[in-house]
Amino acid sequence: MSLGVGVIGAGVMGAYHARLLRDSTGGAHLAAVCDADPSRAVQAAGEARTFSDPLALIADPGIRAVVIASPDATHAPLALACLRVGKPVLLEKPIAPTAAEGWQVVEAEVALGRRLVQMGYMRRFDGAYLEMKAAADKGLIGAPVLLHNIHRNPGAPDWFTGPMPITNSFVHEIDASRWLLGAEMVSASIHAAPGGEPLMITMETSRSEIVSSEVFINAAYGYHVHAELVGRRGTVAMAAPALALVNSDGRQGFGFPDNWVPRFAQAYRDQMQAWVRSVATGVPIGPSAWDGFCATSVAEQIARGMAQGRTQLVLPARPSLYD
Amino acid sequence: MSLGVGVIGAGVMGAYHARLLRDSTGGAHLAAVCDADPSRAVQAAGEARTFSDPLALIADPGIRAVVIASPDATHAPLALACLRVGKPVLLEKPIAPTAAEGWQVVEAEVALGRRLVQMGYMRRFDGAYLEMKAAADKGLIGAPVLLHNIHRNPGAPDWFTGPMPITNSFVHEIDASRWLLGAEMVSASIHAAPGGEPLMITMETSRSEIVSSEVFINAAYGYHVHAELVGRRGTVAMAAPALALVNSDGRQGFGFPDNWVPRFAQAYRDQMQAWVRSVATGVPIGPSAWDGFCATSVAEQIARGMAQGRTQLVLPARPSLYD
Amino acid sequence: MSLGVGVIGAGVMGAYHARLLRDSTGGAHLAAVCDADPSRAVQAAGEARTFSDPLALIADPGIRAVVIASPDATHAPLALACLRVGKPVLLEKPIAPTAAEGWQVVEAEVALGRRLVQMGYMRRFDGAYLEMKAAADKGLIGAPVLLHNIHRNPGAPDWFTGPMPITNSFVHEIDASRWLLGAEMVSASIHAAPGGEPLMITMETSRSEIVSSEVFINAAYGYHVHAELVGRRGTVAMAAPALALVNSDGRQGFGFPDNWVPRFAQAYRDQMQAWVRSVATGVPIGPSAWDGFCATSVAEQIARGMAQGRTQLVLPARPSLYD
Amino acid sequence: MSLGVGVIGAGVMGAYHARLLRDSTGGAHLAAVCDADPSRAVQAAGEARTFSDPLALIADPGIRAVVIASPDATHAPLALACLRVGKPVLLEKPIAPTAAEGWQVVEAEVALGRRLVQMGYMRRFDGAYLEMKAAADKGLIGAPVLLHNIHRNPGAPDWFTGPMPITNSFVHEIDASRWLLGAEMVSASIHAAPGGEPLMITMETSRSEIVSSEVFINAAYGYHVHAELVGRRGTVAMAAPALALVNSDGRQGFGFPDNWVPRFAQAYRDQMQAWVRSVATGVPIGPSAWDGFCATSVAEQIARGMAQGRTQLVLPARPSLYD
Repeated sequence: MSLGVGVIGAGVMGAYHARLLRDSTGGAHLAAVCDADPSRAVQAAGEARTFSDPLALIADPGIRAVVIASPDATHAPLALACLRVGKPVLLEKPIAPTAAEGWQVVEAEVALGRRLVQMGYMRRFDGAYLEMKAAADKGLIGAPVLLHNIHRNPGAPDWFTGPMPITNSFVHEIDASRWLLGAEMVSASIHAAPGGEPLMITMETSRSEIVSSEVFINAAYGYHVHAELVGRRGTVAMAAPALALVNSDGRQGFGFPDNWVPRFAQAYRDQMQAWVRSVATGVPIGPSAWDGFCATSVAEQIARGMAQGRTQLVLPARPSLYD
Repeated sequence: MSLGVGVIGAGVMGAYHARLLRDSTGGAHLAAVCDADPSRAVQAAGEARTFSDPLALIADPGIRAVVIASPDATHAPLALACLRVGKPVLLEKPIAPTAAEGWQVVEAEVALGRRLVQMGYMRRFDGAYLEMKAAADKGLIGAPVLLHNIHRNPGAPDWFTGPMPITNSFVHEIDASRWLLGAEMVSASIHAAPGGEPLMITMETSRSEIVSSEVFINAAYGYHVHAELVGRRGTVAMAAPALALVNSDGRQGFGFPDNWVPRFAQAYRDQMQAWVRSVATGVPIGPSAWDGFCATSVAEQIARGMAQGRTQLVLPARPSLYD
Repeated sequence: MSLGVGVIGAGVMGAYHARLLRDSTGGAHLAAVCDADPSRAVQAAGEARTFSDPLALIADPGIRAVVIASPDATHAPLALACLRVGKPVLLEKPIAPTAAEGWQVVEAEVALGRRLVQMGYMRRFDGAYLEMKAAADKGLIGAPVLLHNIHRNPGAPDWFTGPMPITNSFVHEIDASRWLLGAEMVSASIHAAPGGEPLMITMETSRSEIVSSEVFINAAYGYHVHAELVGRRGTVAMAAPALALVNSDGRQGFGFPDNWVPRFAQAYRDQMQAWVRSVATGVPIGPSAWDGFCATSVAEQIARGMAQGRTQLVLPARPSLYD
Repeated sequence: MSLGVGVIGAGVMGAYHARLLRDSTGGAHLAAVCDADPSRAVQAAGEARTFSDPLALIADPGIRAVVIASPDATHAPLALACLRVGKPVLLEKPIAPTAAEGWQVVEAEVALGRRLVQMGYMRRFDGAYLEMKAAADKGLIGAPVLLHNIHRNPGAPDWFTGPMPITNSFVHEIDASRWLLGAEMVSASIHAAPGGEPLMITMETSRSEIVSSEVFINAAYGYHVHAELVGRRGTVAMAAPALALVNSDGRQGFGFPDNWVPRFAQAYRDQMQAWVRSVATGVPIGPSAWDGFCATSVAEQIARGMAQGRTQLVLPARPSLYD
């Protein structure tokens, strides 16, 4: 039976998730959209119902699963509300603005005794990342020892300030690095270029692998995510994100996507489909609340330690629910 | 309401379409699979019903739309059966083994007065082809004047003989070329390398644009489809089909897909989703029965004219249903 | 002892050859430059002598070898003058405006009984062409069966008319194809896009291999030469001519060279060095007068046969001097 | 008049330089080769003279300029010997095994009052590096803020131990970074992967630009040098070092060069030609003794500081001779 999904938040990401549920997700349908702005909710909902109160949506018996894409500060409280009524959640990153709040979600899930939260770290569903991981898993590059990440945005809105390049952007690299290497980060050091950007962040894993990441929010030229995983016998890197090459005006090349939505369009679609299937089968897939907590906690510790040299990263023991 | 789709044929393509309907198509579900081999039908059907008689599936009131992926010789008769009961069809290519049989489908649809057949020329839904077309439509390359196609298979089964490289493989290039250029082919000439392969086929359109195609069924190294559209001010070509690049054993590179299924996996998925949406909205999308007829008729005429020099291609007037 | 070389013609190519001899050719030096325009001669000559009469330069005892880069109509007469005095020649392509005149050079060399002429088909010294040939020679692609050539210029001067796209541009592909395949061309057919361009020229070799070539003089976007050699087990193609990739203004890409001089700068340099060494050792290297004649004869026959369908190409028997 | 050059050292690099002088350098010729092993000297010398005593070669009146490619420990003493007799030197890197010895060369040159030493940091003559620098100089990427370097070797001989990955390999990146950014390095920190390799070295320049470098001596898969220069408005990166792409055995790709000699063959040739021209004109070009000292001093300080966190780098004031 088709899964009725309610989407909370009708901003860029919420509207996008709603559209995926309306148009191109098997086994599910968009049952409702909730937004404080009714016109935005209606626009994203199409023929589905609308809510202005997220708790009402969560409580509604016609809603069997929830996508949370509202502002960051609401992520944890709304996830907790879903856990209270036992409804599966696809939760946009970050899990919360602070690790402490994120930890509440982990604790609640642990108390519940089963995993209902999938974090929206969509890169784990991206073809290029998956192919990198597959290459490593097949042994094509030998034991991984080093991961290079590059995360460039063409710019950021005014409110994107303070530690947000780390807590809102670099969290993606933290999650992807933990996933690709299957290891926890234990230390980090940062260099910042003049004016504070770009950042070069060097992390070490529990197995002493190195993760070297550039984070450049105002890279101007376009949205560009790149990674190369270095092993003892070879490396695997993302290919350029080009479907077609144009020769014109003396040059050959391709255009970058404007932002993460077109770049990861297929990953978002596959993430949604995988989540719906996971809800149907009851088998968790994708990043967990624990993964969400780790990403936010590591980011928070790195942001706090920026002024000093090397920051030792500390995480609580992983609850057995996440083994 | 979710569209119940029946799939006829549970071979490679039928099973693939069935899986798309089971797993990852919004607004539809797999209602039944039909195959002469019951165990194959069951395997593809999962929890859906199975049939051994395709006409029974077509007649079943629980089946609202049909995917035909059975052997080529059955394509036209089964499509005609669907038209008789007014059910929409996604019809695998070719429309029929002969243009004459394909024409019957066109005639039946014209008699019915509405379009119910979408041909499975999935390349029209491939990201690289779509980006090439978009580049041309946006004027990035000026007026198109020449199209290069390359179609290489690593090999073919024993039964793939005679004119089949033209009537079963090259039909894809005929369709893609008609679609990219928006023009009809009016002449063709062929060169064959020693041993009969590869073929170089040069076609001219009604506007004197040139379509130059290599067809190489036993290219050995892998499945590789490439195209470049040349305009007066620039060109647009497919990028290499690589998600990730591996450095190992002294080389950098990427692996080709084994065959058309992984290469066009996303195109098949998007084709299915677009067809389901088209059935829901009643607005035809994608290649029509007329397109299917043209591809097969052009291929047939080229195959018959192989021995001579240039073959003039003749098509009937396009019925107004397809304007 | 350093070889004193005289360069006849101080136009673009002559000046370029003179500069190579002045600056970066071992075992040789620029001894003189000849041009009807004295200021042009002086500019190209630097500290070397200048001539206005090419026959005087050829006769001068201080000149031990000659580069002919004067207008096409003078190529054959000047090459014949060099043969008369037994001086080695690096002769810019084409060997002559007509095959008949080119044949005189072959006849004179045959009468002389030794090879003194090296044709300036510089692509044989280009790294990409050499690597393609090496890949084929090493057996990486199996037996070659098909060669794709693309030759695009951003435009042409006013005087570049009539058959010149074939006799002055496409001659490069004729020579490169003969060299890569080690076979003679025996037939050709042409398709021209609306307005006469681009041309698609399909040739067959004596072993029935196919050579498929696009010639596009007014391709507008840049100077672009490409080739792919297709064998029974694989293919080898030129990589994009990029040293560096720039990300800017939403795009990634590289710039094409303005014309053949920067594109083949290294090939011209290696050609000159190889020729100087060949003069020193007395062992001919690179394309011969016979190769020059064949390229021009094939081009001439193709240009004459443009109106008809397939043109049978006829060449005289190859003199044993060129075995 | 042709410059008679003597080459000291007939190992891999010495023999290579000797061959360049014999075969493909304009304005110069190989006058002599010196090696402790007479047969090695003879083999590299061809028809040139041979020496077993480098000081005899340096003193010989037939030798007007010297290439020093003998073991590292001899670099500084032999360079000093050349300075004593006022002969120009192309000195293989590093300037000396220690910064203190390298400083003696700088001091001697300063005392002499004119620059006679060109360091063999050949990357400054590599096409890809030059194109990166040109892109930055043309303003295509805005103000540079970050440089990524990757230096991978397939392995190293037994004697390549201790700090040599830094003092013998990474010196190339130090020199290239100083040259590309036009700035001095002021601090560095290192991370080493398990087993000591690869290294990630993060340097900061006097303008707070960041230089992030991977050094991986036992990368196994091949010799691979890569760099990307990141500016405020764009980036420029080396293209893959491929002349041709082979499709075979299910893959597309290209082969890496075995080591730095084929990778930088053209750079070595252009370096030699530029040096010969510089000797002729008396205008210094390329990296100076000061550059050689800086590279070795920075490497030495980094190697010494490996155990600690961030190392502050200190250099003496640059003598005005090198302004």
